Amino acid sequence: MGINILESNSIYLGIDGGGSKCRAILVNGLTGKVLGTGLAGPANPFNNYDQTISSIVDAASKALIDANYNQGEINKLIVGIGLAGVNLPEPLLKMQQWQHPFKAMSVTTDLQIACLGAHNGHDGAIIISGTGSCGFSHVNQKVNMIGAHGFPHGDKGSGAWLGLQVVKQVLLSLDGLEKPTLMNELLLAKLGCSNGLDIVSTVAKQTSSFYAKLAFIVFQAAEDGDKTAIAIAQEGAGYISNVARTLWLDNPTRMSLIGGLTPKLESWLDSDIRNKLSSPIHSPEMGAVIYAQQNTQR
Amino acid sequence: MGINILESNSIYLGIDGGGSKCRAILVNGLTGKVLGTGLAGPANPFNNYDQTISSIVDAASKALIDANYNQGEINKLIVGIGLAGVNLPEPLLKMQQWQHPFKAMSVTTDLQIACLGAHNGHDGAIIISGTGSCGFSHVNQKVNMIGAHGFPHGDKGSGAWLGLQVVKQVLLSLDGLEKPTLMNELLLAKLGCSNGLDIVSTVAKQTSSFYAKLAFIVFQAAEDGDKTAIAIAQEGAGYISNVARTLWLDNPTRMSLIGGLTPKLESWLDSDIRNKLSSPIHSPEMGAVIYAQQNTQR
Repeated sequence: MGINILESNSIYLGIDGGGSKCRAILVNGLTGKVLGTGLAGPANPFNNYDQTISSIVDAASKALIDANYNQGEINKLIVGIGLAGVNLPEPLLKMQQWQHPFKAMSVTTDLQIACLGAHNGHDGAIIISGTGSCGFSHVNQKVNMIGAHGFPHGDKGSGAWLGLQVVKQVLLSLDGLEKPTLMNELLLAKLGCSNGLDIVSTVAKQTSSFYAKLAFIVFQAAEDGDKTAIAIAQEGAGYISNVARTLWLDNPTRMSLIGGLTPKLESWLDSDIRNKLSSPIHSPEMGAVIYAQQNTQR
Repeated sequence: MGINILESNSIYLGIDGGGSKCRAILVNGLTGKVLGTGLAGPANPFNNYDQTISSIVDAASKALIDANYNQGEINKLIVGIGLAGVNLPEPLLKMQQWQHPFKAMSVTTDLQIACLGAHNGHDGAIIISGTGSCGFSHVNQKVNMIGAHGFPHGDKGSGAWLGLQVVKQVLLSLDGLEKPTLMNELLLAKLGCSNGLDIVSTVAKQTSSFYAKLAFIVFQAAEDGDKTAIAIAQEGAGYISNVARTLWLDNPTRMSLIGGLTPKLESWLDSDIRNKLSSPIHSPEMGAVIYAQQNTQR
């Protein structure tokens, strides 16, 4: 039997869902105390709706276990969900129509909850560079989104984009059309390949998450002075700097860079952009809790 | 009942299979006369082996019908097959192990048969730009292949590559990060979209053949003087010119440009490359017949 705290207080569940995983956080609405967390599989309803709702319930369930709560308490949770893919109207509608097991649910983009988390519920802007890339601002109830176009036609400056440039460059050089760079040996070793044909076999039909795992090669070669790798890093970071510059036109009070590429990418940004970045205050899943608090009628 | 000509003469079937279709040609080995042709669905054993052998048999069957032959005669055909995808070892082995219904079968790449066809069975080189792109030479029993890397990491200068540049450029400009170009209106009209989010929804998860259908936008805008489109056309054609230049180092006696993009792309090639191109003598499927004649023991 679980503790019965849910009867007396409002308990919030924040969900941050994306193409590779889904994070949940359980928070006491009165005290703000984190009660438990959960991690589950992919949750992008544009890719796979059934998998998304299954991952959300799984992450919620794990957070309840982590908090030492009874699974039956799931129907007392007030839930805020931020998801990749729901910037498109169809996946958003499908999520909103979900016959969910919670007491209340509000759904928005992964960008919105990341921004709310980074700025503790206040207005602001974020730039994300992880597997994909995008910019987002929320100022005076106006939302602006830049990028989030997807792979391979967009997401410049992201991990997938950087990895794709590595593969393109190495294949051209193995064909003798460009000079070999330090990236050649790094890519061949990483993929366990011995020539271009091996690489072609290995990368065929791969998705953005595969390419994102190759992004480190750009930074490693660039740090060792490889001019082509430096040019790629500069082009990617230049795009991210331009996104940031455009978002500053919306007059956000704060801007944060988030996503898995942050530690590597930050030093490559234009200095005027880098110097104005603020560290995110909370995680995106905590931003989802804030979103639920702001948007759920009780 | 079909005519019994197959008893007395060698009848050859040439097959050219690729990602979107499979062409067959039936040829009398003594007279060289074309007896019939057939067209069937995709035949790329790297993508789908079962579909490939089904398309090959379908195309062969249609060529027999076109030639007014009995379907039972299929086991008398000496068959040469050129396929996309068999530059990789695994699909090639699978094709060679096929318990085919023919009298004899020899399998090689689509590049090899295209080259044999273009130069009437003699040594030479080809550059292909259609949905994908690549270069190939066959000189003094030595084969050289450049490109054929696939989409989205390779195939520069191909239809898919050009279409991808259009989508990237238009999305950047609709985000306000680049100036709009003539390609914006052309792409929105072609896709029936009204904004960037529409485009993102439409292009998500699309493959190379989708992007190849957008390549005309580059040439149309470039012909109307759009500087960005001109730069894209020049970059793509510059790559193809470099491939050709590298192939000339193999000393082929002839070089042909083939593939669906040829009529548009040719004028953008460097003049030294363009002036040395020869028209292909035969089709790739006729090249497959030549391959069968050169490689089948009788």
